[in-house]
Amino acid sequence: MREYLKRYPQYDYLYLGDQANAPYGSHSAECVNELVIKNVDFLAKKGCKLILIACNTASAGALRHVQSIYKGKPAILGVLIPAAEEALRSTRLGTIGVIGTRGTILSGAYERELGKLTPELYKPTDKRAHKRIQIFTQACPLLVPLVEEGMIDSAPTNMILKKYLMPLKAAQVDTLILGCTHYPLLQKHIQRIMGKQCRLVSSSLAAADAIGPYFERHPALEKSLSRKGKRTYFTTDNAERFSDLGSRFLGQKINGEKMVIIQDGIIFSAIGGSASG
Amino acid sequence: MREYLKRYPQYDYLYLGDQANAPYGSHSAECVNELVIKNVDFLAKKGCKLILIACNTASAGALRHVQSIYKGKPAILGVLIPAAEEALRSTRLGTIGVIGTRGTILSGAYERELGKLTPELYKPTDKRAHKRIQIFTQACPLLVPLVEEGMIDSAPTNMILKKYLMPLKAAQVDTLILGCTHYPLLQKHIQRIMGKQCRLVSSSLAAADAIGPYFERHPALEKSLSRKGKRTYFTTDNAERFSDLGSRFLGQKINGEKMVIIQDGIIFSAIGGSASG
Repeated sequence: MREYLKRYPQYDYLYLGDQANAPYGSHSAECVNELVIKNVDFLAKKGCKLILIACNTASAGALRHVQSIYKGKPAILGVLIPAAEEALRSTRLGTIGVIGTRGTILSGAYERELGKLTPELYKPTDKRAHKRIQIFTQACPLLVPLVEEGMIDSAPTNMILKKYLMPLKAAQVDTLILGCTHYPLLQKHIQRIMGKQCRLVSSSLAAADAIGPYFERHPALEKSLSRKGKRTYFTTDNAERFSDLGSRFLGQKINGEKMVIIQDGIIFSAIGGSASG
Repeated sequence: MREYLKRYPQYDYLYLGDQANAPYGSHSAECVNELVIKNVDFLAKKGCKLILIACNTASAGALRHVQSIYKGKPAILGVLIPAAEEALRSTRLGTIGVIGTRGTILSGAYERELGKLTPELYKPTDKRAHKRIQIFTQACPLLVPLVEEGMIDSAPTNMILKKYLMPLKAAQVDTLILGCTHYPLLQKHIQRIMGKQCRLVSSSLAAADAIGPYFERHPALEKSLSRKGKRTYFTTDNAERFSDLGSRFLGQKINGEKMVIIQDGIIFSAIGGSASG
Protein backbone atom coordinates (compact mmCIF):
# COMPACT_ATOMS: atom_id res chain seq x y z
CA MET A 1 0.00 0.00 0.00
CA ARG A 2 2.81 2.38 0.89
CA GLU A 3 4.55 1.69 -2.41
CA TYR A 4 1.33 2.09 -4.45
CA LEU A 5 0.47 5.37 -2.68
CA LYS A 6 3.98 6.70 -3.30
CA ARG A 7 3.75 6.06 -7.04
CA TYR A 8 0.02 6.67 -7.63
CA PRO A 9 -1.46 8.97 -4.98
CA GLN A 10 -4.16 10.27 -7.35
CA TYR A 11 -6.38 7.16 -7.34
CA ASP A 12 -8.99 6.12 -4.76
CA TYR A 13 -7.94 3.15 -2.64
CA LEU A 14 -9.96 0.66 -0.62
CA TYR A 15 -7.71 -1.38 1.65
CA LEU A 16 -8.92 -4.60 3.27
CA GLY A 17 -6.79 -6.17 6.00
CA ASP A 18 -8.08 -9.60 6.92
CA GLN A 19 -6.95 -9.45 10.55
CA ALA A 20 -9.50 -12.05 11.69
CA ASN A 21 -7.77 -14.72 9.63
CA ALA A 22 -4.19 -13.45 9.72
CA PRO A 23 -1.54 -14.69 9.58
CA TYR A 24 -2.26 -16.53 6.32
CA GLY A 25 1.22 -18.09 6.32
CA SER A 26 0.37 -21.31 8.15
CA HIS A 27 -3.07 -21.93 6.62
CA SER A 28 -3.57 -24.66 4.03
CA ALA A 29 -3.98 -23.86 0.34
CA GLU A 30 -7.75 -24.69 0.49
CA CYS A 31 -8.26 -22.33 3.40
CA VAL A 32 -6.31 -19.48 1.74
CA ASN A 33 -8.36 -20.00 -1.40
CA GLU A 34 -11.67 -19.65 0.47
CA LEU A 35 -10.51 -16.53 2.29
CA VAL A 36 -9.22 -14.84 -0.84
CA ILE A 37 -12.49 -15.48 -2.67
CA LYS A 38 -14.43 -13.95 0.24
CA ASN A 39 -12.17 -10.90 0.39
CA VAL A 40 -12.07 -10.32 -3.37
CA ASP A 41 -15.84 -10.60 -3.39
CA PHE A 42 -16.12 -7.92 -0.71
CA LEU A 43 -13.92 -5.49 -2.66
CA ALA A 44 -15.61 -6.28 -5.99
CA LYS A 45 -19.02 -5.50 -4.46
CA LYS A 46 -17.60 -2.19 -3.21
CA GLY A 47 -16.93 -1.31 -6.85
CA CYS A 48 -13.16 -1.85 -7.09
CA LYS A 49 -12.05 -2.17 -10.72
CA LEU A 50 -8.53 -3.37 -9.98
CA ILE A 51 -7.70 -5.60 -7.02
CA LEU A 52 -4.11 -6.04 -5.90
CA ILE A 53 -3.55 -9.10 -3.73
CA ALA A 54 -0.70 -7.62 -1.73
CA CYS A 55 0.23 -10.83 0.07
CA ASN A 56 2.55 -13.55 -1.18
CA THR A 57 0.74 -16.43 0.55
CA ALA A 58 -2.58 -15.33 -0.93
CA SER A 59 -1.07 -14.74 -4.38
CA ALA A 60 0.71 -18.09 -4.30
CA GLY A 61 -2.39 -19.98 -3.21
CA ALA A 62 -5.27 -18.31 -4.93
CA LEU A 63 -4.43 -15.74 -7.63
CA ARG A 64 -4.92 -17.99 -10.66
CA HIS A 65 -8.16 -19.32 -9.19
CA VAL A 66 -9.82 -15.95 -8.47
CA GLN A 67 -8.64 -14.61 -11.83
CA SER A 68 -10.47 -17.49 -13.50
CA ILE A 69 -13.63 -16.71 -11.50
CA TYR A 70 -13.77 -12.95 -12.18
CA LYS A 71 -12.37 -13.03 -15.75
CA GLY A 72 -10.98 -9.48 -15.63
CA LYS A 73 -14.02 -7.79 -13.99
CA PRO A 74 -12.51 -6.68 -11.72
CA ALA A 75 -8.93 -7.16 -12.84
CA ILE A 76 -6.86 -8.97 -10.18
CA LEU A 77 -3.09 -8.85 -9.77
CA GLY A 78 -0.71 -10.57 -7.36
CA VAL A 79 2.83 -9.98 -6.14
CA LEU A 80 4.63 -13.16 -7.16
CA ILE A 81 5.10 -12.72 -10.89
CA PRO A 82 6.63 -9.21 -10.66
CA ALA A 83 9.11 -10.48 -8.04
CA ALA A 84 9.98 -13.54 -10.14
CA GLU A 85 10.53 -11.32 -13.21
CA GLU A 86 12.81 -8.96 -11.34
CA ALA A 87 14.83 -11.82 -9.84
CA LEU A 88 15.42 -13.36 -13.28
CA ARG A 89 16.55 -10.00 -14.66
CA SER A 90 18.81 -9.45 -11.66
CA THR A 91 20.62 -12.79 -11.26
CA ARG A 92 24.09 -13.08 -12.76
CA LEU A 93 24.81 -16.70 -11.86
CA GLY A 94 21.29 -18.12 -11.98
CA THR A 95 21.23 -18.96 -8.26
CA ILE A 96 18.03 -17.55 -6.79
CA GLY A 97 16.87 -17.80 -3.16
CA VAL A 98 13.28 -17.38 -2.00
CA ILE A 99 12.16 -16.77 1.58
CA GLY A 100 8.48 -16.72 2.50
CA THR A 101 5.84 -18.06 4.85
CA ARG A 102 5.30 -21.79 5.14
CA GLY A 103 2.24 -21.48 2.86
CA THR A 104 4.11 -19.62 0.11
CA ILE A 105 7.09 -22.00 0.16
CA LEU A 106 5.01 -25.21 0.34
CA SER A 107 2.87 -24.04 -2.59
CA GLY A 108 5.90 -24.15 -4.88
CA ALA A 109 4.45 -21.12 -6.67
CA TYR A 110 7.76 -19.24 -6.94
CA GLU A 111 9.48 -22.27 -8.51
CA ARG A 112 6.57 -22.54 -10.94
CA GLU A 113 6.56 -18.87 -11.97
CA LEU A 114 10.37 -18.65 -12.14
CA GLY A 115 10.42 -21.78 -14.27
CA LYS A 116 7.81 -20.42 -16.69
CA LEU A 117 9.57 -17.05 -17.08
CA THR A 118 13.13 -18.36 -17.35
CA PRO A 119 13.33 -18.91 -21.14
CA GLU A 120 12.23 -15.32 -21.79
CA LEU A 121 13.96 -13.38 -19.00
CA TYR A 122 17.05 -15.26 -17.80
CA LYS A 123 20.10 -13.62 -19.35
CA PRO A 124 23.04 -14.45 -17.07
CA THR A 125 25.85 -11.90 -17.16
CA ASP A 126 28.55 -13.97 -15.50
CA LYS A 127 30.53 -16.58 -17.39
CA ARG A 128 30.35 -18.91 -14.38
CA ALA A 129 26.57 -18.81 -14.69
CA HIS A 130 24.44 -21.92 -14.74
CA LYS A 131 22.62 -22.77 -17.95
CA ARG A 132 19.39 -23.22 -16.06
CA ILE A 133 18.43 -21.37 -12.92
CA GLN A 134 18.82 -23.00 -9.52
CA ILE A 135 16.22 -22.15 -6.89
CA PHE A 136 16.72 -22.47 -3.12
CA THR A 137 13.71 -21.88 -0.90
CA GLN A 138 13.35 -21.40 2.85
CA ALA A 139 10.16 -21.07 4.91
CA CYS A 140 10.59 -18.46 7.67
CA PRO A 141 7.41 -18.79 9.76
CA LEU A 142 8.63 -16.74 12.74
CA LEU A 143 9.46 -13.56 10.83
CA VAL A 144 5.86 -12.33 10.51
CA PRO A 145 5.13 -12.55 14.26
CA LEU A 146 8.51 -10.96 15.09
CA VAL A 147 7.87 -8.03 12.74
CA GLU A 148 4.30 -7.64 14.01
CA GLU A 149 5.65 -7.44 17.57
CA GLY A 150 7.99 -4.64 16.50
CA MET A 151 11.12 -6.71 17.26
CA ILE A 152 12.91 -5.67 14.10
CA ASP A 153 16.19 -4.53 15.66
CA SER A 154 16.57 -7.20 18.30
CA ALA A 155 19.07 -9.95 19.10
CA PRO A 156 16.50 -12.81 18.96
CA THR A 157 15.29 -11.71 15.52
CA ASN A 158 18.87 -11.52 14.32
CA MET A 159 19.61 -15.05 15.56
CA ILE A 160 16.46 -16.44 13.98
CA LEU A 161 17.24 -14.65 10.70
CA LYS A 162 20.75 -16.16 10.66
CA LYS A 163 19.31 -19.63 11.20
CA TYR A 164 16.89 -19.19 8.29
CA LEU A 165 19.40 -17.56 5.92
CA MET A 166 22.49 -19.71 6.49
CA PRO A 167 21.47 -22.48 4.02
CA LEU A 168 20.81 -19.84 1.33
CA LYS A 169 24.13 -18.14 1.99
CA ALA A 170 25.85 -21.54 1.83
CA ALA A 171 24.16 -22.15 -1.54
CA GLN A 172 25.69 -18.84 -2.70
CA VAL A 173 22.47 -17.39 -4.05
CA ASP A 174 23.25 -14.09 -5.80
CA THR A 175 19.61 -12.92 -5.72
CA LEU A 176 17.16 -13.34 -2.86
CA ILE A 177 13.41 -12.81 -3.22
CA LEU A 178 11.81 -11.36 -0.06
CA GLY A 179 8.62 -13.31 -0.71
CA CYS A 180 6.45 -11.79 2.01
CA THR A 181 5.26 -8.22 2.45
CA HIS A 182 6.58 -8.15 6.03
CA TYR A 183 10.18 -8.90 5.11
CA PRO A 184 11.25 -5.55 3.61
CA LEU A 185 11.06 -4.20 7.18
CA LEU A 186 13.97 -6.58 7.93
CA GLN A 187 15.85 -5.72 4.71
CA LYS A 188 18.85 -4.06 6.41
CA HIS A 189 19.46 -7.11 8.60
CA ILE A 190 18.91 -9.60 5.77
CA GLN A 191 21.37 -7.70 3.58
CA ARG A 192 24.00 -7.69 6.34
CA ILE A 193 23.69 -11.45 6.82
CA MET A 194 23.62 -12.32 3.10
CA GLY A 195 26.44 -9.92 2.22
CA LYS A 196 26.64 -6.99 -0.19
CA GLN A 197 27.05 -9.17 -3.28
CA CYS A 198 23.53 -10.64 -2.86
CA ARG A 199 20.72 -8.64 -4.49
CA LEU A 200 17.48 -8.48 -2.54
CA VAL A 201 14.23 -8.38 -4.52
CA SER A 202 11.27 -7.06 -2.55
CA SER A 203 7.98 -8.48 -3.77
CA SER A 204 6.21 -5.30 -2.61
CA LEU A 205 8.47 -2.98 -4.60
CA ALA A 206 8.44 -5.27 -7.63
CA ALA A 207 4.64 -5.43 -7.62
CA ALA A 208 4.29 -1.65 -7.35
CA ASP A 209 6.86 -1.14 -10.09
CA ALA A 210 4.90 -3.48 -12.35
CA ILE A 211 1.75 -1.34 -12.21
CA GLY A 212 3.07 1.31 -14.65
CA PRO A 213 3.71 -1.17 -17.48
CA TYR A 214 0.40 -2.87 -16.64
CA PHE A 215 -1.49 0.41 -17.10
CA GLU A 216 0.29 0.96 -20.43
CA ARG A 217 -1.05 -2.39 -21.59
CA HIS A 218 -4.54 -1.62 -20.21
CA PRO A 219 -5.23 2.09 -20.86
CA ALA A 220 -9.05 1.73 -20.75
CA LEU A 221 -8.93 0.24 -17.25
CA GLU A 222 -6.54 2.95 -16.07
CA LYS A 223 -8.83 5.68 -17.43
CA SER A 224 -11.85 4.21 -15.66
CA LEU A 225 -10.26 4.48 -12.18
CA SER A 226 -11.61 7.27 -9.99
CA ARG A 227 -9.12 9.95 -8.94
CA LYS A 228 -10.21 11.70 -5.78
CA GLY A 229 -7.25 10.57 -3.67
CA LYS A 230 -9.70 8.92 -1.28
CA ARG A 231 -8.50 6.11 1.03
CA THR A 232 -10.71 3.75 3.04
CA TYR A 233 -9.29 1.15 5.39
CA PHE A 234 -11.26 -1.98 6.26
CA THR A 235 -10.33 -4.74 8.65
CA THR A 236 -12.13 -7.96 9.54
CA ASP A 237 -11.04 -7.72 13.19
CA ASN A 238 -9.40 -5.69 15.90
CA ALA A 239 -9.60 -2.14 14.57
CA GLU A 240 -7.27 -0.76 17.22
CA ARG A 241 -4.44 -3.18 16.54
CA PHE A 242 -5.01 -2.70 12.81
CA SER A 243 -4.52 1.06 13.21
CA ASP A 244 -1.29 0.52 15.16
CA LEU A 245 0.20 -2.00 12.74
CA GLY A 246 -1.17 -0.22 9.69
CA SER A 247 0.38 3.07 10.71
CA ARG A 248 3.75 1.37 11.28
CA PHE A 249 3.69 -0.31 7.86
CA LEU A 250 2.26 2.63 5.98
CA GLY A 251 4.67 5.10 7.56
CA GLN A 252 1.77 7.46 8.22
CA LYS A 253 -1.00 7.52 10.76
CA ILE A 254 -4.34 5.94 9.85
CA ASN A 255 -7.01 8.14 11.38
CA GLY A 256 -10.73 8.03 11.77
CA GLU A 257 -13.55 6.35 13.59
CA LYS A 258 -14.41 2.69 13.70
CA MET A 259 -17.40 1.36 11.80
CA VAL A 260 -18.78 -2.14 11.60
CA ILE A 261 -20.27 -3.86 8.57
CA ILE A 262 -21.68 -7.38 8.72
CA GLN A 263 -21.48 -9.41 5.55
CA ASP A 264 -22.03 -13.16 5.26
CA GLY A 265 -21.69 -13.37 9.02
CA ILE A 266 -18.28 -11.72 8.98
CA ILE A 267 -17.71 -8.47 10.79
CA PHE A 268 -15.81 -5.87 8.80
CA SER A 269 -14.71 -2.80 10.72
CA ALA A 270 -13.88 0.18 8.56
CA ILE A 271 -11.42 2.62 9.99
CA GLY A 272 -12.06 6.15 8.88
CA GLY A 273 -11.82 7.50 5.39
CA SER A 274 -8.48 9.21 5.34
CA ALA A 275 -4.84 8.95 6.27
CA SER A 276 -2.95 12.02 7.38
CA GLY A 277 0.67 12.89 6.63
CA MET B 1 -6.05 -33.30 26.07
CA ARG B 2 -2.94 -35.08 27.29
CA GLU B 3 -3.82 -34.31 30.90
CA TYR B 4 -7.45 -35.41 30.49
CA LEU B 5 -6.41 -38.67 28.78
CA LYS B 6 -3.92 -39.39 31.55
CA ARG B 7 -6.57 -39.06 34.26
CA TYR B 8 -9.64 -40.36 32.43
CA PRO B 9 -8.69 -42.69 29.56
CA GLN B 10 -11.99 -44.60 29.79
CA TYR B 11 -14.23 -41.94 28.20
CA ASP B 12 -14.74 -41.23 24.50
CA TYR B 13 -13.16 -37.98 23.32
CA LEU B 14 -13.83 -35.76 20.33
CA TYR B 15 -11.08 -33.22 19.86
CA LEU B 16 -11.54 -30.17 17.63
CA GLY B 17 -8.48 -28.08 16.76
CA ASP B 18 -9.48 -24.85 15.03
CA GLN B 19 -6.30 -24.58 12.95
CA ALA B 20 -7.98 -22.41 10.30
CA ASN B 21 -8.45 -19.61 12.80
CA ALA B 22 -5.47 -20.22 15.08
CA PRO B 23 -3.75 -18.56 16.79
CA TYR B 24 -6.68 -17.08 18.74
CA GLY B 25 -4.33 -14.94 20.84
CA SER B 26 -4.37 -11.80 18.70
CA HIS B 27 -8.06 -11.89 17.67
CA SER B 28 -10.55 -9.45 19.18
CA ALA B 29 -13.05 -10.56 21.83
CA GLU B 30 -15.93 -10.39 19.30
CA CYS B 31 -14.07 -12.61 16.86
CA VAL B 32 -13.15 -15.17 19.55
CA ASN B 33 -16.76 -15.23 20.67
CA GLU B 34 -18.04 -16.03 17.17
CA LEU B 35 -15.46 -18.78 16.67
CA VAL B 36 -16.16 -20.42 20.02
CA ILE B 37 -19.91 -20.49 19.32
CA LYS B 38 -19.25 -22.12 15.95
CA ASN B 39 -16.93 -24.74 17.46
CA VAL B 40 -19.12 -25.54 20.47
CA ASP B 41 -22.04 -25.91 18.10
CA PHE B 42 -20.09 -28.42 16.00
CA LEU B 43 -19.22 -30.55 19.04
CA ALA B 44 -22.72 -30.28 20.52
CA LYS B 45 -24.20 -31.56 17.24
CA LYS B 46 -21.76 -34.46 17.36
CA GLY B 47 -23.39 -35.46 20.65
CA CYS B 48 -20.80 -34.28 23.18
CA LYS B 49 -22.28 -33.98 26.67
CA LEU B 50 -19.36 -32.15 28.24
CA ILE B 51 -17.26 -29.62 26.34
CA LEU B 52 -13.90 -28.50 27.71
CA ILE B 53 -12.68 -25.25 26.18
CA ALA B 54 -8.99 -26.06 26.51
CA CYS B 55 -7.72 -22.63 25.50
CA ASN B 56 -7.24 -19.64 27.74
CA THR B 57 -8.03 -17.02 25.10
CA ALA B 58 -11.29 -18.77 24.22
CA SER B 59 -12.20 -19.31 27.88
CA ALA B 60 -11.39 -15.69 28.73
CA GLY B 61 -13.39 -14.30 25.85
CA ALA B 62 -16.36 -16.58 25.45
CA LEU B 63 -16.96 -19.13 28.24
CA ARG B 64 -19.64 -17.18 30.13
CA HIS B 65 -21.39 -16.36 26.88
CA VAL B 66 -21.60 -19.92 25.47
CA GLN B 67 -22.59 -21.24 28.91
CA SER B 68 -25.54 -18.84 28.86
CA ILE B 69 -26.53 -20.03 25.38
CA TYR B 70 -26.41 -23.79 26.06
CA LYS B 71 -27.61 -23.71 29.68
CA GLY B 72 -25.85 -26.94 30.69
CA LYS B 73 -26.81 -29.02 27.62
CA PRO B 74 -24.04 -29.71 26.86
CA ALA B 75 -22.13 -28.67 29.96
CA ILE B 76 -19.22 -26.36 29.10
CA LEU B 77 -16.09 -25.79 31.17
CA GLY B 78 -13.07 -23.54 30.68
CA VAL B 79 -9.51 -23.42 31.98
CA LEU B 80 -9.36 -20.02 33.74
CA ILE B 81 -11.27 -20.62 36.96
CA PRO B 82 -9.34 -23.78 37.95
CA ALA B 83 -6.05 -21.94 37.40
CA ALA B 84 -7.24 -18.91 39.40
CA GLU B 85 -8.36 -21.18 42.24
CA GLU B 86 -5.04 -22.98 42.37
CA ALA B 87 -3.08 -19.72 42.30
CA LEU B 88 -5.07 -18.34 45.25
CA ARG B 89 -4.47 -21.51 47.24
CA SER B 90 -0.77 -21.46 46.36
CA THR B 91 0.25 -17.84 46.98
CA ARG B 92 1.88 -17.04 50.33
CA LEU B 93 2.35 -13.29 49.82
CA GLY B 94 -0.64 -12.52 47.64
CA THR B 95 1.49 -11.47 44.65
CA ILE B 96 0.26 -13.33 41.59
CA GLY B 97 1.60 -13.03 38.05
CA VAL B 98 -0.31 -14.01 34.92
CA ILE B 99 1.19 -14.59 31.47
CA GLY B 100 -1.00 -15.22 28.46
CA THR B 101 -1.75 -14.24 24.89
CA ARG B 102 -2.65 -10.65 24.08
CA GLY B 103 -6.33 -11.64 23.95
CA THR B 104 -6.31 -13.30 27.37
CA ILE B 105 -4.45 -10.45 29.05
CA LEU B 106 -6.47 -7.65 27.41
CA SER B 107 -9.73 -9.35 28.40
CA GLY B 108 -8.90 -8.86 32.10
CA ALA B 109 -10.57 -12.21 32.74
CA TYR B 110 -7.92 -13.49 35.16
CA GLU B 111 -8.13 -10.32 37.26
CA ARG B 112 -11.91 -10.72 37.30
CA GLU B 113 -11.93 -14.38 38.33
CA LEU B 114 -9.11 -13.94 40.85
CA GLY B 115 -10.96 -10.99 42.38
CA LYS B 116 -14.21 -12.94 42.67
CA LEU B 117 -12.55 -15.97 44.29
CA THR B 118 -10.24 -14.06 46.65
CA PRO B 119 -12.57 -13.75 49.70
CA GLU B 120 -13.16 -17.50 49.73
CA LEU B 121 -9.77 -18.92 48.76
CA TYR B 122 -7.01 -16.47 49.65
CA LYS B 123 -5.37 -17.63 52.90
CA PRO B 124 -1.85 -16.15 52.92
CA THR B 125 0.67 -18.18 54.91
CA ASP B 126 3.40 -15.55 55.19
CA LYS B 127 3.24 -12.73 57.72
CA ARG B 128 4.60 -10.27 55.14
CA ALA B 129 1.55 -11.08 53.01
CA HIS B 130 -0.66 -8.42 51.49
CA LYS B 131 -4.22 -8.10 52.81
CA ARG B 132 -5.54 -8.13 49.29
CA ILE B 133 -3.97 -9.91 46.37
CA GLN B 134 -1.83 -8.01 43.87
CA ILE B 135 -2.00 -9.13 40.24
CA PHE B 136 0.69 -8.48 37.62
CA THR B 137 -0.09 -9.44 34.03
CA GLN B 138 2.09 -9.75 30.94
CA ALA B 139 1.02 -10.50 27.36
CA CYS B 140 3.56 -12.82 25.66
CA PRO B 141 2.40 -12.91 22.02
CA LEU B 142 5.58 -14.52 20.62
CA LEU B 143 5.57 -17.62 22.81
CA VAL B 144 2.86 -19.49 20.87
CA PRO B 145 4.63 -19.16 17.50
CA LEU B 146 7.99 -20.07 19.08
CA VAL B 147 6.54 -23.22 20.68
CA GLU B 148 4.71 -24.15 17.47
CA GLU B 149 8.01 -23.88 15.59
CA GLY B 150 9.59 -26.29 18.07
CA MET B 151 12.07 -23.66 19.31
CA ILE B 152 11.63 -24.56 22.95
CA ASP B 153 15.29 -25.00 23.88
CA SER B 154 16.78 -22.13 21.91
CA ALA B 155 18.67 -18.95 22.71
CA PRO B 156 16.14 -16.62 21.01
CA THR B 157 13.25 -18.11 22.97
CA ASN B 158 15.23 -17.74 26.18
CA MET B 159 15.94 -14.06 25.45
CA ILE B 160 12.32 -13.36 24.61
CA LEU B 161 11.17 -15.19 27.75
CA LYS B 162 13.52 -13.07 29.88
CA LYS B 163 12.15 -9.90 28.35
CA TYR B 164 8.57 -10.94 29.11
CA LEU B 165 9.26 -12.25 32.61
CA MET B 166 11.59 -9.55 33.99
CA PRO B 167 8.76 -7.18 35.08
CA LEU B 168 7.04 -10.06 36.92
CA LYS B 169 10.27 -11.09 38.59
CA ALA B 170 10.88 -7.46 39.60
CA ALA B 171 7.37 -7.37 41.10
CA GLN B 172 8.37 -10.43 43.17
CA VAL B 173 5.36 -12.52 42.27
CA ASP B 174 5.43 -15.75 44.32
CA THR B 175 2.94 -17.53 42.05
CA LEU B 176 2.80 -17.36 38.27
CA ILE B 177 -0.17 -18.56 36.22
CA LEU B 178 0.87 -20.06 32.87
CA GLY B 179 -2.29 -18.75 31.23
CA CYS B 180 -1.96 -20.45 27.85
CA THR B 181 -1.96 -24.14 26.99
CA HIS B 182 1.30 -23.77 25.06
CA TYR B 183 3.33 -22.44 27.99
CA PRO B 184 3.79 -25.66 30.02
CA LEU B 185 6.13 -26.78 27.23
CA LEU B 186 8.39 -23.87 28.35
CA GLN B 187 7.92 -24.58 32.07
CA LYS B 188 11.56 -25.57 32.73
CA HIS B 189 12.85 -22.33 31.24
CA ILE B 190 10.22 -20.17 32.92
CA GLN B 191 11.04 -21.74 36.28
CA ARG B 192 14.77 -21.10 35.80
CA ILE B 193 14.17 -17.43 35.01
CA MET B 194 11.62 -16.84 37.77
CA GLY B 195 13.63 -18.73 40.39
CA LYS B 196 12.79 -21.73 42.56
CA GLN B 197 10.77 -19.71 45.08
CA CYS B 198 8.10 -18.88 42.44
CA ARG B 199 5.32 -21.46 42.06
CA LEU B 200 4.11 -22.06 38.53
CA VAL B 201 0.43 -22.84 38.02
CA SER B 202 -0.35 -24.55 34.72
CA SER B 203 -3.87 -23.81 33.51
CA SER B 204 -3.91 -27.17 31.67
CA LEU B 205 -3.03 -29.18 34.79
CA ALA B 206 -5.37 -27.15 36.98
CA ALA B 207 -8.27 -27.64 34.57
CA ALA B 208 -7.69 -31.40 34.36
CA ASP B 209 -7.39 -31.62 38.16
CA ALA B 210 -10.71 -29.81 38.53
CA ILE B 211 -12.62 -32.46 36.57
CA GLY B 212 -12.68 -34.98 39.45
CA PRO B 213 -14.43 -32.64 41.90
CA TYR B 214 -16.70 -31.49 39.06
CA PHE B 215 -17.85 -35.09 38.42
CA GLU B 216 -18.48 -35.53 42.15
CA ARG B 217 -20.83 -32.56 42.02
CA HIS B 218 -22.47 -33.84 38.79
CA PRO B 219 -22.75 -37.65 39.06
CA ALA B 220 -25.62 -37.95 36.57
CA LEU B 221 -23.60 -36.22 33.85
CA GLU B 222 -20.57 -38.40 34.60
CA LYS B 223 -22.68 -41.57 34.39
CA SER B 224 -24.12 -40.54 31.03
CA LEU B 225 -20.68 -40.31 29.36
CA SER B 226 -19.81 -43.13 26.95
CA ARG B 227 -16.80 -45.25 27.88
CA LYS B 228 -15.33 -46.96 24.85
CA GLY B 229 -11.98 -45.19 25.02
CA LYS B 230 -12.62 -43.85 21.51
CA ARG B 231 -10.75 -40.75 20.30
CA THR B 232 -11.55 -38.70 17.21
CA TYR B 233 -9.47 -35.73 16.12
CA PHE B 234 -10.96 -32.96 14.00
CA THR B 235 -9.25 -29.92 12.58
CA THR B 236 -10.61 -27.03 10.56
CA ASP B 237 -7.46 -26.84 8.43
CA ASN B 238 -4.14 -28.36 7.50
CA ALA B 239 -4.50 -31.98 8.62
CA GLU B 240 -0.82 -32.74 8.12
CA ARG B 241 0.46 -29.90 10.27
CA PHE B 242 -2.23 -30.72 12.83
CA SER B 243 -0.95 -34.31 13.07
CA ASP B 244 2.63 -33.06 13.56
CA LEU B 245 1.78 -30.49 16.22
CA GLY B 246 -0.86 -32.67 17.83
CA SER B 247 1.54 -35.57 18.22
CA ARG B 248 4.13 -33.28 19.79
CA PHE B 249 1.65 -31.85 22.30
CA LEU B 250 -0.10 -35.10 23.05
CA GLY B 251 3.15 -37.01 23.50
CA GLN B 252 1.81 -39.80 21.29
CA LYS B 253 1.32 -40.17 17.59
CA ILE B 254 -2.04 -39.26 16.06
CA ASN B 255 -2.65 -41.78 13.31
CA GLY B 256 -5.24 -42.35 10.65
CA GLU B 257 -6.51 -41.10 7.35
CA LYS B 258 -7.76 -37.66 6.50
CA MET B 259 -11.45 -37.02 5.98
CA VAL B 260 -13.27 -33.85 5.10
CA ILE B 261 -16.63 -32.65 6.39
CA ILE B 262 -18.24 -29.45 5.20
CA GLN B 263 -20.50 -27.67 7.65
CA ASP B 264 -21.77 -24.08 7.33
CA GLY B 265 -19.19 -23.54 4.63
CA ILE B 266 -16.33 -24.55 6.90
CA ILE B 267 -14.16 -27.50 6.05
CA PHE B 268 -13.51 -29.84 8.93
CA SER B 269 -10.91 -32.52 8.35
CA ALA B 270 -11.12 -35.47 10.71
CA ILE B 271 -7.90 -37.31 11.28
CA GLY B 272 -8.46 -40.96 11.96
CA GLY B 273 -10.26 -42.43 14.88
CA SER B 274 -7.48 -43.51 17.15
CA ALA B 275 -4.19 -42.55 18.69
CA SER B 276 -1.49 -45.12 19.18
CA GLY B 277 0.94 -45.41 22.09
